[in-house]
Amino acid sequence: MTVSSPHTPLRTLNASKLKIQYTTQPKPVPASDAPEVISHSACTDHMLVARWDDASGWADPEIVPHGGLTLMLTASVLHYATACFEGMKVHRGVDGKLRLFRPWLNCERMLKSSQRISLPSVDPAELLKLVRALCTVDGPKWLPKDTARGSGLYIRPTLIGTDHSLGFQVPQEALLFVVISYWAAPGQNELSISSTRAKPAPRGLRLYASPEDTVRAWPGGTGAAKLSANYGPTLMSHAQAKKLEYDQVLWLFGPECQITEAGSSNFFVIWRTQEDKLQLVTAALHDQLILPGVTRQSILELARERFATTKQNAHGDHIEALEVLEGKLSMFDIIAAAEEERLLAAFSVGTAAFVTPVSQILFRGQPIDINEAAVPHVDALRGWMTDIMYGKEISPWVDEVSED
Amino acid sequence: MTVSSPHTPLRTLNASKLKIQYTTQPKPVPASDAPEVISHSACTDHMLVARWDDASGWADPEIVPHGGLTLMLTASVLHYATACFEGMKVHRGVDGKLRLFRPWLNCERMLKSSQRISLPSVDPAELLKLVRALCTVDGPKWLPKDTARGSGLYIRPTLIGTDHSLGFQVPQEALLFVVISYWAAPGQNELSISSTRAKPAPRGLRLYASPEDTVRAWPGGTGAAKLSANYGPTLMSHAQAKKLEYDQVLWLFGPECQITEAGSSNFFVIWRTQEDKLQLVTAALHDQLILPGVTRQSILELARERFATTKQNAHGDHIEALEVLEGKLSMFDIIAAAEEERLLAAFSVGTAAFVTPVSQILFRGQPIDINEAAVPHVDALRGWMTDIMYGKEISPWVDEVSED
Repeated sequence: MTVSSPHTPLRTLNASKLKIQYTTQPKPVPASDAPEVISHSACTDHMLVARWDDASGWADPEIVPHGGLTLMLTASVLHYATACFEGMKVHRGVDGKLRLFRPWLNCERMLKSSQRISLPSVDPAELLKLVRALCTVDGPKWLPKDTARGSGLYIRPTLIGTDHSLGFQVPQEALLFVVISYWAAPGQNELSISSTRAKPAPRGLRLYASPEDTVRAWPGGTGAAKLSANYGPTLMSHAQAKKLEYDQVLWLFGPECQITEAGSSNFFVIWRTQEDKLQLVTAALHDQLILPGVTRQSILELARERFATTKQNAHGDHIEALEVLEGKLSMFDIIAAAEEERLLAAFSVGTAAFVTPVSQILFRGQPIDINEAAVPHVDALRGWMTDIMYGKEISPWVDEVSED
Repeated sequence: MTVSSPHTPLRTLNASKLKIQYTTQPKPVPASDAPEVISHSACTDHMLVARWDDASGWADPEIVPHGGLTLMLTASVLHYATACFEGMKVHRGVDGKLRLFRPWLNCERMLKSSQRISLPSVDPAELLKLVRALCTVDGPKWLPKDTARGSGLYIRPTLIGTDHSLGFQVPQEALLFVVISYWAAPGQNELSISSTRAKPAPRGLRLYASPEDTVRAWPGGTGAAKLSANYGPTLMSHAQAKKLEYDQVLWLFGPECQITEAGSSNFFVIWRTQEDKLQLVTAALHDQLILPGVTRQSILELARERFATTKQNAHGDHIEALEVLEGKLSMFDIIAAAEEERLLAAFSVGTAAFVTPVSQILFRGQPIDINEAAVPHVDALRGWMTDIMYGKEISPWVDEVSED
């Protein structure tokens, strides 16, 4: 640890000080069906690291060969879950350009998460520059211009408390790192994806509604920040869902069985109200229960703009106007809508999961089936998102990454 | 990873397979006021490690020189807080013997915590044997028979998910480790401590009652397990308490401001009811809100047995009988008792914090002062606990550690 004099201001995270040490042992790019790709443990050649301590602030960030990390066994993150992260993607467009999708939103959320878990503040603008730099280093090889058009890589910025004191305290040392996972996620190798062509939708998710004695987040808790501490405790229910052959947990809250999230994604329905209004509904951001997803926000913005009036899509399909609502959405509302044949779609959205229809919810032992093809809106949203991410539609939401 | 055939049963954690590799670079024992001791970052010479994977089960446990740990940056614990731990102490008795205090309770709680966070089950009996073995290796040097009578060391068994897949899943690899911290905790260097001699009580804690928008645990959450995920999220309020010159947060829950825990300790009061009954009260274990502390359980058992009838202590002090209750304890009950001069003591109990009186609670900006010397019960409890831990009283609660 460098000790500064009391008069030296703490050093801020500064992307202009970035040093790059290129690997001398580049890895082969694995096949997309290789075991390490399927298990999401294959990473690219490099990683970004920046150390922080409370006496001197941020050290110069570095891009170095991807490798292990040596921690003291008393490191804060191992005992007190002082950690937060982000998930974002970089895509190789149909025009051969590399683009991030609304990365400033992830970087701003990383700042909020770091504050919530008492880690040093990460300047969103500097983090974005560092993420771009890592994509510039590993993008050309891992998403080749000639063969990877329509593919993406998953980026994981992470901040951990490395302080090696067992005393329970705000960490005085921390490490920011960014790794890129070679992830065969939805959206990869989908060159033909477009809103202007018919394509098969992903298989519908089967969701297992959380039992009454298991709660993901609570008002006054940390559900609205992307903290590591929100994830591990949900694995028990996740494993229960898998055992019952469901894909994810649908997280309910309170006696009204308010729907909050699906797995680690946000959840939407499209239904017709008893007054015959067509609506797109998702849980509102209140009480710190819900993670403000970047895909969630994008879906809401696209739907508000593009479903405001009834129109036809490129195939001549009629797409009916709908109202977009953020509010309370209870399991009982869903059941009533399903019984009265007013439930037209349910889908889950997130960076990793993208936009995936839901085909069934198991609630207190009763399955509720959901027709995946009742309305064209979900396919339209997925198509628009894909067009923007892969550069088929010009949009201010994308951030081009230089490869020079 | 060793891959077993499907017919090979998974290997269980087996203390009889323990291998010991002694350090060739023993460290000097630091002074009790050395900076690394004050900051709780000084550890003894050795650590215990045992690896697990879901294909073969537990590898043979090993005691090796204390050192760092190399993790992949994608390790589960860094992203999803798949971690749980225990805190326990080993004491050098006044008779020169080394003893653990009710360690089987910690080992059983570790099993429950490991299950709650979806890590492999840790067999409590084997864990206890391994903890004893580590104390046998490091006890003689770090708590010397001749100079350390009446002192203790803090033991931290920890289990983390080391699986290096970013996919959100139950970890398929894990690491159990035990480190011993050379911790100048209450109880250290207190040779004169005893129930039969007057001694100064520790300085009273000042507690900052948690604000309405912050909760530590909730029904259906993980507050009853010793998970890493319960700790980091509370640092923000802890830092706020420190800023206001308070020692710990008093964690309230719900609109009735139900008292749950104080910092990472359990909380007790002694009061006289409006019907003039003397009572010792702590929060009941329900709704998964409260950690079932070993010190909490010991205080309840001692109080139920020894405060059942009015008696005199060795100095001739009159110790009035009291009723012991586990129930709901709200901040408003405390305020009413304080206003009516019925609040006679409040104290916090835990392995690290031991038995510490509380002198003030700050609730919604109003300080509530608590007389620390109104009743002799807290001193009596602290004295009895000390006598048992340091071998002045023969008790089935202690577990002697062999030093041969």
